[in-house]
Amino acid sequence: MNQPALTKVKRLEGVLSPVVTPFRKDYSPDAERFVRHCKWLLKNGCSGLAVFGTNSEANSLSVSEKRSLLEKLVSGGVPAASLMPGTGSCALPDTIELTRAAVELGCAGVLVLPPFYYKGVLDEGLYRSFAEVIERVGDERLQLYLYHIPPVSQIGFSLELIERLLKKYPGIVAGVKDSGGIWSNTKAMLDAFAKSGFDVFSGSEVFLLDNMRNGGKGCITATGNINPGAIDKLYRNWKGADADKLQAGITATRKIVQKQRMIPALKASIAHFGNDPQWKTCRPPLVELSSAEETTLISELKASGFTMPGLAG
Amino acid sequence: MNQPALTKVKRLEGVLSPVVTPFRKDYSPDAERFVRHCKWLLKNGCSGLAVFGTNSEANSLSVSEKRSLLEKLVSGGVPAASLMPGTGSCALPDTIELTRAAVELGCAGVLVLPPFYYKGVLDEGLYRSFAEVIERVGDERLQLYLYHIPPVSQIGFSLELIERLLKKYPGIVAGVKDSGGIWSNTKAMLDAFAKSGFDVFSGSEVFLLDNMRNGGKGCITATGNINPGAIDKLYRNWKGADADKLQAGITATRKIVQKQRMIPALKASIAHFGNDPQWKTCRPPLVELSSAEETTLISELKASGFTMPGLAG
Repeated sequence: MNQPALTKVKRLEGVLSPVVTPFRKDYSPDAERFVRHCKWLLKNGCSGLAVFGTNSEANSLSVSEKRSLLEKLVSGGVPAASLMPGTGSCALPDTIELTRAAVELGCAGVLVLPPFYYKGVLDEGLYRSFAEVIERVGDERLQLYLYHIPPVSQIGFSLELIERLLKKYPGIVAGVKDSGGIWSNTKAMLDAFAKSGFDVFSGSEVFLLDNMRNGGKGCITATGNINPGAIDKLYRNWKGADADKLQAGITATRKIVQKQRMIPALKASIAHFGNDPQWKTCRPPLVELSSAEETTLISELKASGFTMPGLAG
Repeated sequence: MNQPALTKVKRLEGVLSPVVTPFRKDYSPDAERFVRHCKWLLKNGCSGLAVFGTNSEANSLSVSEKRSLLEKLVSGGVPAASLMPGTGSCALPDTIELTRAAVELGCAGVLVLPPFYYKGVLDEGLYRSFAEVIERVGDERLQLYLYHIPPVSQIGFSLELIERLLKKYPGIVAGVKDSGGIWSNTKAMLDAFAKSGFDVFSGSEVFLLDNMRNGGKGCITATGNINPGAIDKLYRNWKGADADKLQAGITATRKIVQKQRMIPALKASIAHFGNDPQWKTCRPPLVELSSAEETTLISELKASGFTMPGLAG
């Protein structure tokens, strides 16, 4: 067993994938395929893995399923230092349990949704929620990233709330993933906090170049699951002369995928290019693509020259 | 130990309260106060208890906290046959675990939210989700009520989805709580399914009389926590000459309470009329009323002649 160091893990930067979670026919999580896909991602452009994100169907998994998968990733050879698992849920004890487990495994960070069942809650309540998580985990190794995704969670982080958390817990509140889809909001976070050691990741590669040009640290993006190499190429060359051209290329691929329902589309792509149909399974309430949707997706991807090198083994 | 019968428990009708959950100062659930309030409700007008509803902060509780509270209610003398716990959560295994526990304890039914993290999901996915719960619990005693509350969950039940579930699982799919706040939707459910043994509860006492006049079975309402007697009086006298007057009275009380944030307002009322300030505590992300809000609430309730007989012991 590797004993994680009692100091903070080096912060992640670059392209992170919110790794899709494979299921067996009976909807149970498939740790073996999960480890395999994580390793492919790290070999093909991802510098980190935001497992248990929205695209991972993470909120359809129980805490014990997530703990088990996390342990299997690490024991299966995925470095804990590459992991930024999502640990936020509606219930405070669940968030605390999974956050603590991640820190104890030596994960680089955790990406934490606000509690999302109650709508229209006060910032004071969200502040208390995050303060309770941080205090009860009570571990200086914790690096907590705020997961801002109002289109799904309906609850987000105001600049005032971020400021209050950052002031109270500097070094622990490490950054944000902004999946709100509104560049002006990402920009406002960058302008306000990037210089205070608050690492801003755009929630889509569509804003990767804008984010890097304004002091951001990379992106955590759904399509990182299937197109990590091209996205990473822009990340590494964002100061280069062809940066805008690289951006246009990855944006075009994204547009093909997001014409379909995103999560089943990612899974259909992995199933097709990896020659592994079991990947298509989604856990309810999500539903796999229809044959027609799948045919459209794959033919449009192929026509664009898209590939997933080495996936089929 | 009472061994629950292996037949279905008699279906609940009348006024059910989504019982507010008391917390200690450290935000841990307070089983003793919970049992006490449940007994007060059953003595003062509630025919059943929809514990672990929205107003119970149930989605802020872990599955193990809910299982423990449910066991303590039953061992503390609250009849399982009076209970309709909320058991729906985002993650399928959590919903299955809590539903199974409720059935095994002999609860009259379960009130099940759709999985609510993913937005805009297909009816097919919701159908699969409920089918998996029912099949995996695999117990003929199960009586499952659909919890329709789009203002909070954002995900609701279409008439087509209800029809499909009812056709596949007659006797198990037992009814609905409609907390959508739109009477025409409740009416459509009544018109379509009330005659097929599908029990419709309005999600607020504001629609109690309309619901009863159209074949409904009662209401499951937040303010049932503090005003069960008056609501029950209308339930028992809905055919009487003064029914509209009784309706106007309970609607007026509701309006006073819902000027404030509902859950902290219910807790502040119990704290005040029960002379037990610890009741005010809400678990994050919810926040108790401010002193000013509390003063307004209590003075308006008092001015209306509102009381909670026997609560202060």
